[in-house]
Amino acid sequence: MSNAKVLPLLEPDVQGVVPCCPPLTERPMNAEEAERAARMFKALGDPVRLRLFSAVASHEGGEACVCDISDVGVSQPTVSHHLKKLKEAGLLTSERRGTWVYYRVEPSVLAAMGRLLTVA
Amino acid sequence: MSNAKVLPLLEPDVQGVVPCCPPLTERPMNAEEAERAARMFKALGDPVRLRLFSAVASHEGGEACVCDISDVGVSQPTVSHHLKKLKEAGLLTSERRGTWVYYRVEPSVLAAMGRLLTVA
Repeated sequence: MSNAKVLPLLEPDVQGVVPCCPPLTERPMNAEEAERAARMFKALGDPVRLRLFSAVASHEGGEACVCDISDVGVSQPTVSHHLKKLKEAGLLTSERRGTWVYYRVEPSVLAAMGRLLTVA
Repeated sequence: MSNAKVLPLLEPDVQGVVPCCPPLTERPMNAEEAERAARMFKALGDPVRLRLFSAVASHEGGEACVCDISDVGVSQPTVSHHLKKLKEAGLLTSERRGTWVYYRVEPSVLAAMGRLLTVA
């Protein structure tokens, strides 16, 4: 039995999220900064995704599983699809516990996006 | 000569922008709030549009015309197209002065978006 199979992979889904960019009002963004930030804004640019993000962000303990946020009026596979998109954009992290995958808002990313929109 | 031609039309392009929504972490958004907020996020979800928005937001005096922000690497018609999209989303207002249309960031909208991303 190799070590590789024994060692638990802690938080395998956490992505290398880098806080991005000075306030939009401070100086013009360069291309690289804009690419990164636009990816996050785009992820929130869909009403259903935004509601799901808000449902996770405001859920008790700051985390939720698909089972907790089924009241947005879309099917569970659709919920899962959107949560995956939010995760890919670095806005959510996830962790499997038992049957369910729990999603959590990445606070540093929320703070970075908020900072972007600060009036300098 | 009619009055209509004499009277200056002050800020004719200002839209009825309503500050939107509590922090995403406070409570789940409802459908109507999400529609409105997603529209703004979507407008910033394109790298070129985000750079242009940042160029206007950070320009001297908080306003800029197309002539001021031509260094994003896209044609002037493309710049104009994106500025129009930002205006439609309520993120910019515009005013024609002489030859040029000047764009200005709507500070209340920026503040409202920043508030959305506040960690409650």
